[in-house]
Amino acid sequence: MARVLIPLAPGFEEIEAVSTIDVLRRADVEVVVAAVGDGGSVVGSHGIAVRAEVRLRDVRDEEFDAVILPGGEPGVTNLDADPDVTAVVERQARAGRPLAAICAAPRLLAQRGLLRGREATSHPSVGSHLRAGGAAYDDAHRVVRDGMLLTSRGPGTAIEFALETLEMLGLGARATELRRAMLVAAPD
Amino acid sequence: MARVLIPLAPGFEEIEAVSTIDVLRRADVEVVVAAVGDGGSVVGSHGIAVRAEVRLRDVRDEEFDAVILPGGEPGVTNLDADPDVTAVVERQARAGRPLAAICAAPRLLAQRGLLRGREATSHPSVGSHLRAGGAAYDDAHRVVRDGMLLTSRGPGTAIEFALETLEMLGLGARATELRRAMLVAAPD
Repeated sequence: MARVLIPLAPGFEEIEAVSTIDVLRRADVEVVVAAVGDGGSVVGSHGIAVRAEVRLRDVRDEEFDAVILPGGEPGVTNLDADPDVTAVVERQARAGRPLAAICAAPRLLAQRGLLRGREATSHPSVGSHLRAGGAAYDDAHRVVRDGMLLTSRGPGTAIEFALETLEMLGLGARATELRRAMLVAAPD
Repeated sequence: MARVLIPLAPGFEEIEAVSTIDVLRRADVEVVVAAVGDGGSVVGSHGIAVRAEVRLRDVRDEEFDAVILPGGEPGVTNLDADPDVTAVVERQARAGRPLAAICAAPRLLAQRGLLRGREATSHPSVGSHLRAGGAAYDDAHRVVRDGMLLTSRGPGTAIEFALETLEMLGLGARATELRRAMLVAAPD
């Protein structure tokens, strides 16, 4: 069974985080929701408190099949400031294992040099950061995959992003079933 | 400022509930998230615990500009069994005030005779309940509005459902802005 990590920092974008957790669990992926900072519930950017099962600092040395970063502000700023997030993300990238970021979160990857020469997208509001970080910026697609790197644009693309994460984990057949069962609109 | 009620029962569908709360709050609607049963966090159908600010029993006699029912199982079965949910839904329908339900939740309306002769949709898995309840069943659209009654189909239609709830509350201009800012796919 695939096992993935989703770090939640205060101010995370709720639709992005919850859509990803929900879709992956529907495909029987083990999703570890880890609080940045103290454990317990983490409050998102629209006041929705979601319970995290563990603290990131307690699982930061474990290996995950994918690391997935939700967007939202100040969520991404809080992820960016946390040394455990940096450690986990850089190790995942170095190992060439699946790494996924949506909305404002690809900025965090760009600022660590992880998007240089890679095809990537993001929320339009942080596109300049990706370009400055040397990404081949793609604003024509809602989800962009380049090898084991996946990026996407915002709350409205979150389910598609989660389904594409399943594809990256080798669970494409489940993604196809879920697209139908969840009434996901046909892609562009 | 509009004020809406979203009851959460154990087993609610997380994408549907969270997308609705998030989108409405982005439009500055006051969203009251009310636990069916005891207060505190309510665990959804994919193990995501969301904190409810109040208990439904404590706000059931208040007037809301809209009442919105998320789907999911056993969430809808739990909503269906709760007398406070019935009281709130029947009062809202009688008053002709906005009432919205997504996925499996329109079944609850059908079983109370509230969809008789009305255009409505639902998750395909409960379509037979709507037809049995006398609804003019529409499986060609992702969100269906008939006067102050709004129904929709599943997690993949949740953001569109929330945006149409804004339209029903007279906040169509905000819905248009949000559609763009949230990168929502163009409707069918």
